[in-house]
Amino acid sequence: MPEITHHADTDALGPQQPLSMVRTALGYVAMIVLAVAAFFVIRHYGQSLVAPAASAVAPAAANAKSPVGGILPVLVALAAVIALGQVMGRLCAKVGQPPVIGEVLAGILLGPSLLGATISAWILPPDSAPYLGIVAQFGVILYMFLVGLELNAEWLRGRAHVAALVSHASIVVPFVLGAVLSLYLYPRLADSQVPFTSFALFMGVAMSITAFPVLARILTDQGMARSKLGALALSCAATDDATAWCLLAMVVGVARADTSTAVLVVGGTLSYAVVMLLGVRPLARRLAYRWDGEHLPRRAVALVFVALLASAATTQAIGIHALFGAFLLGVVIPHDSPVAKAFMQQLQNITTVLLLPAFFAFTGMRTDIRLLNTADQWLMCGAIIAVATVGKFGGTIAAARLTGLGWRESAALGTLMNTRGLMELIVLNVGLELGVIPPELFAMMVIMALVTTVATSPIVRRLVPAH
Amino acid sequence: MPEITHHADTDALGPQQPLSMVRTALGYVAMIVLAVAAFFVIRHYGQSLVAPAASAVAPAAANAKSPVGGILPVLVALAAVIALGQVMGRLCAKVGQPPVIGEVLAGILLGPSLLGATISAWILPPDSAPYLGIVAQFGVILYMFLVGLELNAEWLRGRAHVAALVSHASIVVPFVLGAVLSLYLYPRLADSQVPFTSFALFMGVAMSITAFPVLARILTDQGMARSKLGALALSCAATDDATAWCLLAMVVGVARADTSTAVLVVGGTLSYAVVMLLGVRPLARRLAYRWDGEHLPRRAVALVFVALLASAATTQAIGIHALFGAFLLGVVIPHDSPVAKAFMQQLQNITTVLLLPAFFAFTGMRTDIRLLNTADQWLMCGAIIAVATVGKFGGTIAAARLTGLGWRESAALGTLMNTRGLMELIVLNVGLELGVIPPELFAMMVIMALVTTVATSPIVRRLVPAH
Repeated sequence: MPEITHHADTDALGPQQPLSMVRTALGYVAMIVLAVAAFFVIRHYGQSLVAPAASAVAPAAANAKSPVGGILPVLVALAAVIALGQVMGRLCAKVGQPPVIGEVLAGILLGPSLLGATISAWILPPDSAPYLGIVAQFGVILYMFLVGLELNAEWLRGRAHVAALVSHASIVVPFVLGAVLSLYLYPRLADSQVPFTSFALFMGVAMSITAFPVLARILTDQGMARSKLGALALSCAATDDATAWCLLAMVVGVARADTSTAVLVVGGTLSYAVVMLLGVRPLARRLAYRWDGEHLPRRAVALVFVALLASAATTQAIGIHALFGAFLLGVVIPHDSPVAKAFMQQLQNITTVLLLPAFFAFTGMRTDIRLLNTADQWLMCGAIIAVATVGKFGGTIAAARLTGLGWRESAALGTLMNTRGLMELIVLNVGLELGVIPPELFAMMVIMALVTTVATSPIVRRLVPAH
Repeated sequence: MPEITHHADTDALGPQQPLSMVRTALGYVAMIVLAVAAFFVIRHYGQSLVAPAASAVAPAAANAKSPVGGILPVLVALAAVIALGQVMGRLCAKVGQPPVIGEVLAGILLGPSLLGATISAWILPPDSAPYLGIVAQFGVILYMFLVGLELNAEWLRGRAHVAALVSHASIVVPFVLGAVLSLYLYPRLADSQVPFTSFALFMGVAMSITAFPVLARILTDQGMARSKLGALALSCAATDDATAWCLLAMVVGVARADTSTAVLVVGGTLSYAVVMLLGVRPLARRLAYRWDGEHLPRRAVALVFVALLASAATTQAIGIHALFGAFLLGVVIPHDSPVAKAFMQQLQNITTVLLLPAFFAFTGMRTDIRLLNTADQWLMCGAIIAVATVGKFGGTIAAARLTGLGWRESAALGTLMNTRGLMELIVLNVGLELGVIPPELFAMMVIMALVTTVATSPIVRRLVPAH
């Protein structure tokens, strides 16, 4: 797809480049300074807040028990969620929604939210959660590896300054707004064990996610992937992804540990990223073109899998999540190399059709919408959706206008960046596992992820006629 | 490979067909009657035997504990066993052994046998066994599905009478000898909770396994897969596989339950096999040719995975192992259909390189050769190897001679059928999980599986010059 770079660089952004470079640089510095200042002001006020002594509901109860029943419940749960996910996915496709929405909904439908705890326990027995969780984690690790493999570093390079400004604005604004919202949510929903700083940081990151893979699928479905706007959206989303995961890594580091070990975690994460990008990347470039993708030798396959497991284990051991290591390994393997193509082709189906539904089932099992049973709670949920959308949409539009994009295109870009999709669910599960967010807030955030993702396609279709 | 059928049917076995048909039928009936009679005589004597009150070692202790430590130990264990497996596999290939031997050895090397419990626990912590076990089970389920997919039903049809006689002789003789050996082993090694009948039946089945996939790999490596002998060995091994799994299913049914539920289990298994072969097979034939393997639609992939999970869950729910359902589903999908080819191509690497090593690690973790620390125990181990080899080798040669094969070819066939490989390990793990065999006997049987598999290649190379 060299066409993308060509279009975007010369037609849309070329003429304004000298001016936009200066504007971009100034805007960028101002934005970061303001954001950091804003966060410290918020933190100052937030630290005096007191969270409820204990969460109303036991956190992630399913996770604590010892697994029983062996493999049978895992097989049944997976079969059910895949089958229902396909049905829901086709329904979604019929009304112009990405199928992944249907697959996520299938998990929630089979969870306690709608069927109730008793019936849901037949299909997704809470006892089997740890086993299902392991399969889900393998699914997410392989999926993030694929996301990393598909990430085209070229998209970031050519239009780095524009993509960086738009992307970082689309992160910073919802991040700051998410931290502001924490001032309201923390005394009402948080656990008193969780310090305000961790809570606000996590909420900030969770608000600022953009789902690169779902976005790519929406753009392809609309025939927009090769348009100027599509290319810009993709490069912004890719930058968003990379930035958000780095931020989350740091937040997890802070949330996991006291300050001194947090420094170790953040330091370890940064060092590992540097080692991977500067040390492993050149090695991966050399190896990735050496083998023929059609007849990949067994030792090459083993080498990639060992590297994947080792990289995932390293980030897990550092204190952040295994998926970061998987993503990083995907990033350092050139996306157009025979090795990358062979792995994408072979892992796609088993990961997205067989293993990832375990993650949807796992998420659905933990999402109990019945926890939201007061008007107050639904108000909070509405506030979360509003803040997430205003932040993402507003941040993107402001930055896009600043770089010279028209109103209509800026609005379409803002809508696209508001897609939260699967990535948001992964982030939320990390937060739930860490205990940073309670199950109620988890349910609200899952609803937010669904609403923002569902809203994208119809709005973009109105703003940009299909090609 | 229609060549195989052609060669074997007309050149080798065609001329003798009228005579061999009668001989085969008579021999077959005599064999089955004698075997059943022999088993009842053995059972008569065996039932008066008393097993030790409690096993010297806690059975499969690793399995009982609640899993801790999350995904990190699983990632580390997998990375270690894959990496070491590749190194060992290449060493094996250099000395003319199939690489799978090296991968199995890697699991045992990382287990407590050689490193000792303390060091081994760093790489394969016993606490993480349930998690590793789930990954291993997924690996085995997918692997057995692949074995089923690769099974060419045509191999069984054309030469059914010869293959059936040789194959069933190569099962019946070691089966009966295994039951006889039980008279010696039961009072020394078994747990008093286990009735003699279950023990003897299990030992019989465990002795009569032939590893179809390893055999196929050895034949391919030697350039023998398309020869008359190779085709006969493959069709015998395929029959062996199918028969042995049916036998094991029945044995598990008997071992799992009291007599009345055992009837239910055996009845359920047979009914399910009939439903799959008569009901699902025609449906699978129609569907399997409908889709293009290159661009398999997502719903086709989902349908196959849901069917796989459902079939595995059904046999697990019936009371036998999930792997039977996976194998059966593979068998009913035509092996040369686009769907089968697409799945074989996509699942091969992730199953055999990433997931199956979890099974080797899991097996290695449970194999503690240090349990064999007396001369008596090593004598028993030697007896097991001798009985397994004599039974398989003798049974095959006798039947092969009866159907008119020469001495040299009969001996080569006997050696080939003695390959136990990975299949034996799967069977042994089922026995260990059921508690039918104690860890000591498990270790002896693992050694037997390794020795018989290692012996195959060099002996066959002597008997049949490479093509």
